[in-house]
Amino acid sequence: METCIFCKIIRGDIPCTKVYEDENVISFLDIAPANKGHSLVVPKEHYDTLIEAPEEIINYRLKVAKKVARAMSSSLANEGFNVLINNNKVAGQLVPHVHIHIIPRFKGDGIRLNWSPKKYKDKEIGEFAEKIKKFL
Amino acid sequence: METCIFCKIIRGDIPCTKVYEDENVISFLDIAPANKGHSLVVPKEHYDTLIEAPEEIINYRLKVAKKVARAMSSSLANEGFNVLINNNKVAGQLVPHVHIHIIPRFKGDGIRLNWSPKKYKDKEIGEFAEKIKKFL
Repeated sequence: METCIFCKIIRGDIPCTKVYEDENVISFLDIAPANKGHSLVVPKEHYDTLIEAPEEIINYRLKVAKKVARAMSSSLANEGFNVLINNNKVAGQLVPHVHIHIIPRFKGDGIRLNWSPKKYKDKEIGEFAEKIKKFL
Repeated sequence: METCIFCKIIRGDIPCTKVYEDENVISFLDIAPANKGHSLVVPKEHYDTLIEAPEEIINYRLKVAKKVARAMSSSLANEGFNVLINNNKVAGQLVPHVHIHIIPRFKGDGIRLNWSPKKYKDKEIGEFAEKIKKFL
Protein backbone atom coordinates (compact mmCIF):
# COMPACT_ATOMS: atom_id res chain seq x y z
CA MET A 1 0.00 0.00 0.00
CA GLU A 2 1.23 3.43 -1.01
CA THR A 3 1.00 5.13 2.38
CA CYS A 4 1.69 2.21 4.73
CA ILE A 5 4.91 2.61 6.74
CA PHE A 6 5.62 -1.13 6.78
CA CYS A 7 5.06 -1.37 3.00
CA LYS A 8 7.58 1.48 2.64
CA ILE A 9 10.08 -0.44 4.79
CA ILE A 10 9.47 -3.60 2.73
CA ARG A 11 10.06 -1.63 -0.51
CA GLY A 12 13.26 -0.18 0.99
CA ASP A 13 11.94 3.41 0.93
CA ILE A 14 12.36 3.67 4.72
CA PRO A 15 15.32 2.02 6.50
CA CYS A 16 14.95 -0.58 9.23
CA THR A 17 17.27 -2.70 11.35
CA LYS A 18 16.64 -6.09 9.81
CA VAL A 19 17.16 -9.40 11.53
CA TYR A 20 15.60 -11.65 8.86
CA GLU A 21 14.17 -11.43 5.37
CA ASP A 22 12.94 -13.87 2.75
CA GLU A 23 10.48 -13.81 -0.13
CA ASN A 24 7.41 -13.60 2.08
CA VAL A 25 8.37 -12.11 5.40
CA ILE A 26 10.60 -9.46 6.93
CA SER A 27 11.66 -9.16 10.56
CA PHE A 28 13.23 -6.04 12.06
CA LEU A 29 13.77 -4.41 15.45
CA ASP A 30 10.99 -2.24 16.86
CA ILE A 31 12.36 1.29 17.22
CA ALA A 32 10.24 1.83 20.35
CA PRO A 33 10.95 -1.49 22.08
CA ALA A 34 9.46 -2.85 25.29
CA ASN A 35 12.92 -4.36 25.86
CA LYS A 36 16.00 -4.08 23.67
CA GLY A 37 15.88 -6.78 21.00
CA HIS A 38 12.05 -6.55 20.67
CA SER A 39 11.40 -7.60 17.06
CA LEU A 40 8.51 -7.46 14.63
CA VAL A 41 7.64 -10.12 12.07
CA VAL A 42 5.73 -8.70 9.11
CA PRO A 43 4.34 -10.41 5.99
CA LYS A 44 5.41 -8.64 2.81
CA GLU A 45 1.89 -8.67 1.43
CA HIS A 46 -0.30 -6.00 2.99
CA TYR A 47 -3.14 -7.18 5.20
CA ASP A 48 -4.64 -4.91 7.82
CA THR A 49 -5.14 -7.47 10.59
CA LEU A 50 -5.09 -11.19 11.36
CA ILE A 51 -8.69 -11.42 10.15
CA GLU A 52 -7.84 -10.44 6.55
CA ALA A 53 -4.57 -12.42 6.28
CA PRO A 54 -4.88 -15.85 4.62
CA GLU A 55 -4.04 -18.96 6.62
CA GLU A 56 -0.77 -19.78 4.82
CA ILE A 57 0.52 -16.25 5.40
CA ILE A 58 -0.28 -16.43 9.11
CA ASN A 59 1.25 -19.87 9.49
CA TYR A 60 4.46 -18.98 7.70
CA ARG A 61 4.82 -15.75 9.61
CA LEU A 62 4.36 -17.58 12.92
CA LYS A 63 7.01 -20.09 11.86
CA VAL A 64 9.45 -17.23 11.29
CA ALA A 65 8.38 -15.60 14.57
CA LYS A 66 9.28 -18.82 16.39
CA LYS A 67 12.68 -18.88 14.65
CA VAL A 68 13.32 -15.29 15.68
CA ALA A 69 12.17 -16.03 19.25
CA ARG A 70 14.62 -18.95 19.45
CA ALA A 71 17.48 -16.84 18.06
CA MET A 72 16.57 -14.09 20.51
CA SER A 73 16.71 -16.43 23.49
CA SER A 74 20.06 -17.84 22.30
CA SER A 75 21.62 -14.42 21.80
CA LEU A 76 20.05 -12.26 24.50
CA ALA A 77 19.61 -14.96 27.16
CA ASN A 78 16.09 -13.77 27.95
CA GLU A 79 14.15 -16.21 30.10
CA GLY A 80 10.86 -15.87 28.25
CA PHE A 81 9.06 -13.88 25.59
CA ASN A 82 5.66 -12.51 24.64
CA VAL A 83 4.06 -12.91 21.26
CA LEU A 84 1.52 -10.16 20.72
CA ILE A 85 -0.67 -9.33 17.74
CA ASN A 86 -2.79 -6.22 18.15
CA ASN A 87 -5.71 -6.05 15.77
CA ASN A 88 -7.20 -2.62 15.04
CA LYS A 89 -6.47 0.75 16.61
CA VAL A 90 -8.64 0.15 19.68
CA ALA A 91 -6.37 -2.82 20.51
CA GLY A 92 -3.21 -0.72 20.25
CA GLN A 93 -2.31 -1.52 16.63
CA LEU A 94 -0.28 1.53 15.60
CA VAL A 95 0.55 0.44 12.02
CA PRO A 96 -2.42 -1.07 10.16
CA HIS A 97 -0.30 -3.78 8.47
CA VAL A 98 -0.55 -7.00 10.46
CA HIS A 99 2.59 -7.70 12.52
CA ILE A 100 3.75 -9.94 15.35
CA HIS A 101 5.60 -8.43 18.29
CA ILE A 102 8.21 -10.70 19.87
CA ILE A 103 9.24 -9.21 23.19
CA PRO A 104 12.17 -10.73 25.08
CA ARG A 105 11.52 -10.79 28.82
CA PHE A 106 13.86 -10.58 31.77
CA LYS A 107 13.30 -10.81 35.52
CA GLY A 108 12.32 -7.44 36.97
CA ASP A 109 12.05 -5.70 33.59
CA GLY A 110 8.96 -3.87 34.83
CA ILE A 111 6.89 -4.58 31.70
CA ARG A 112 3.25 -5.01 32.53
CA LEU A 113 1.42 -6.93 29.81
CA ASN A 114 -1.37 -8.00 32.09
CA TRP A 115 -4.64 -6.58 33.41
CA SER A 116 -6.84 -6.02 36.43
CA PRO A 117 -9.35 -8.82 35.93
CA LYS A 118 -12.99 -7.90 35.33
CA LYS A 119 -15.52 -9.89 37.37
CA TYR A 120 -18.44 -11.86 35.93
CA LYS A 121 -21.68 -11.70 37.92
CA ASP A 122 -23.54 -14.96 38.72
CA LYS A 123 -24.31 -16.72 35.45
CA GLU A 124 -22.89 -13.97 33.25
CA ILE A 125 -19.84 -16.02 32.16
CA GLY A 126 -22.15 -18.66 30.69
CA GLU A 127 -24.16 -16.00 28.90
CA PHE A 128 -21.02 -14.61 27.28
CA ALA A 129 -19.97 -18.10 26.16
CA GLU A 130 -23.43 -18.67 24.65
CA LYS A 131 -23.22 -15.40 22.72
CA ILE A 132 -19.83 -16.34 21.21
CA LYS A 133 -20.86 -19.95 20.52
CA LYS A 134 -23.78 -18.76 18.39
CA PHE A 135 -21.24 -17.56 15.80
CA LEU A 136 -19.00 -20.64 15.92
CA MET B 1 0.20 -33.86 32.55
CA GLU B 2 -1.00 -35.00 35.95
CA THR B 3 -0.77 -31.68 37.78
CA CYS B 4 -1.46 -29.22 34.95
CA ILE B 5 -4.66 -27.20 35.44
CA PHE B 6 -5.39 -27.02 31.71
CA CYS B 7 -4.84 -30.78 31.32
CA LYS B 8 -7.36 -31.25 34.16
CA ILE B 9 -9.85 -29.00 32.34
CA ILE B 10 -9.27 -30.96 29.11
CA ARG B 11 -9.88 -34.26 30.94
CA GLY B 12 -13.05 -32.81 32.45
CA ASP B 13 -11.73 -33.01 36.03
CA ILE B 14 -12.14 -29.23 36.45
CA PRO B 15 -15.08 -27.37 34.89
CA CYS B 16 -14.71 -24.54 32.38
CA THR B 17 -17.02 -22.33 30.36
CA LYS B 18 -16.41 -23.74 26.92
CA VAL B 19 -16.93 -21.89 23.66
CA TYR B 20 -15.39 -24.47 21.31
CA GLU B 21 -13.98 -27.98 21.38
CA ASP B 22 -12.76 -30.50 18.84
CA GLU B 23 -10.33 -33.41 18.81
CA ASN B 24 -7.23 -31.22 19.09
CA VAL B 25 -8.18 -27.94 20.70
CA ILE B 26 -10.39 -26.51 23.42
CA SER B 27 -11.43 -22.88 23.86
CA PHE B 28 -12.97 -21.51 27.03
CA LEU B 29 -13.49 -18.20 28.80
CA ASP B 30 -10.70 -16.88 31.00
CA ILE B 31 -12.06 -16.66 34.56
CA ALA B 32 -9.93 -13.56 35.22
CA PRO B 33 -10.65 -11.69 31.97
CA ALA B 34 -9.16 -8.44 30.75
CA ASN B 35 -12.61 -7.81 29.26
CA LYS B 36 -15.69 -9.99 29.47
CA GLY B 37 -15.58 -12.54 26.65
CA HIS B 38 -11.77 -12.90 26.87
CA SER B 39 -11.13 -16.46 25.68
CA LEU B 40 -8.25 -18.93 25.71
CA VAL B 41 -7.41 -21.37 22.95
CA VAL B 42 -5.51 -24.38 24.24
CA PRO B 43 -4.14 -27.44 22.40
CA LYS B 44 -5.22 -30.68 24.05
CA GLU B 45 -1.71 -32.08 23.96
CA HIS B 46 0.49 -30.64 26.66
CA TYR B 47 3.36 -28.40 25.56
CA ASP B 48 4.86 -25.88 27.94
CA THR B 49 5.37 -23.00 25.48
CA LEU B 50 5.32 -22.10 21.80
CA ILE B 51 8.91 -23.31 21.51
CA GLU B 52 8.05 -26.94 22.36
CA ALA B 53 4.79 -27.11 20.37
CA PRO B 54 5.07 -28.63 16.87
CA GLU B 55 4.21 -26.51 13.85
CA GLU B 56 0.94 -28.27 12.98
CA ILE B 57 -0.33 -27.82 16.54
CA ILE B 58 0.48 -24.11 16.50
CA ASN B 59 -1.07 -23.59 13.09
CA TYR B 60 -4.26 -25.40 13.92
CA ARG B 61 -4.60 -23.60 17.21
CA LEU B 62 -4.15 -20.25 15.51
CA LYS B 63 -6.82 -21.18 12.97
CA VAL B 64 -9.24 -21.86 15.82
CA ALA B 65 -8.15 -18.65 17.57
CA LYS B 66 -9.06 -16.71 14.43
CA LYS B 67 -12.46 -18.42 14.31
CA VAL B 68 -13.09 -17.54 17.95
CA ALA B 69 -11.93 -13.95 17.33
CA ARG B 70 -14.38 -13.62 14.44
CA ALA B 71 -17.24 -15.08 16.50
CA MET B 72 -16.31 -12.76 19.35
CA SER B 73 -16.44 -9.67 17.12
CA SER B 74 -19.80 -10.79 15.68
CA SER B 75 -21.35 -11.41 19.08
CA LEU B 76 -19.77 -8.81 21.35
CA ALA B 77 -19.32 -6.05 18.75
CA ASN B 78 -15.78 -5.32 19.95
CA GLU B 79 -13.84 -3.08 17.59
CA GLY B 80 -10.57 -4.95 17.84
CA PHE B 81 -8.78 -7.71 19.72
CA ASN B 82 -5.38 -8.73 21.05
CA VAL B 83 -3.80 -12.09 20.51
CA LEU B 84 -1.26 -12.76 23.23
CA ILE B 85 0.93 -15.77 23.93
CA ASN B 86 3.07 -15.49 27.06
CA ASN B 87 5.99 -17.89 27.10
CA ASN B 88 7.48 -18.76 30.50
CA LYS B 89 6.77 -17.32 33.93
CA VAL B 90 8.95 -14.24 33.45
CA ALA B 91 6.67 -13.28 30.52
CA GLY B 92 3.52 -13.62 32.63
CA GLN B 93 2.60 -17.20 31.69
CA LEU B 94 0.57 -18.34 34.69
CA VAL B 95 -0.28 -21.85 33.45
CA PRO B 96 2.67 -23.68 31.87
CA HIS B 97 0.53 -25.25 29.10
CA VAL B 98 0.78 -23.14 25.96
CA HIS B 99 -2.35 -21.04 25.36
CA ILE B 100 -3.50 -18.13 23.24
CA HIS B 101 -5.34 -15.24 24.87
CA ILE B 102 -7.94 -13.56 22.68
CA ILE B 103 -8.95 -10.31 24.29
CA PRO B 104 -11.89 -8.34 22.87
CA ARG B 105 -11.21 -4.60 22.96
CA PHE B 106 -13.54 -1.64 23.29
CA LYS B 107 -12.95 2.11 23.21
CA GLY B 108 -11.96 3.43 26.63
CA ASP B 109 -11.71 -0.04 28.22
CA GLY B 110 -8.61 1.10 30.11
CA ILE B 111 -6.55 -1.99 29.25
CA ARG B 112 -2.89 -1.16 28.84
CA LEU B 113 -1.09 -3.80 26.79
CA ASN B 114 1.72 -1.47 25.79
CA TRP B 115 4.97 -0.24 27.28
CA SER B 116 7.20 2.76 27.95
CA PRO B 117 9.69 2.34 25.11
CA LYS B 118 13.34 1.70 25.99
CA LYS B 119 15.85 3.80 24.08
CA TYR B 120 18.77 2.44 22.03
CA LYS B 121 22.01 4.42 22.26
CA ASP B 122 23.85 5.34 19.03
CA LYS B 123 24.62 2.13 17.13
CA GLU B 124 23.20 -0.16 19.81
CA ILE B 125 20.14 -1.16 17.74
CA GLY B 126 22.44 -2.54 15.02
CA GLU B 127 24.45 -4.44 17.59
CA PHE B 128 21.31 -6.10 18.93
CA ALA B 129 20.25 -7.08 15.39
CA GLU B 130 23.69 -8.58 14.77
CA LYS B 131 23.49 -10.62 17.96
CA ILE B 132 20.10 -12.09 16.98
CA LYS B 133 21.10 -12.64 13.34
CA LYS B 134 24.01 -14.84 14.42
CA PHE B 135 21.49 -17.45 15.52
CA LEU B 136 19.23 -17.20 12.47
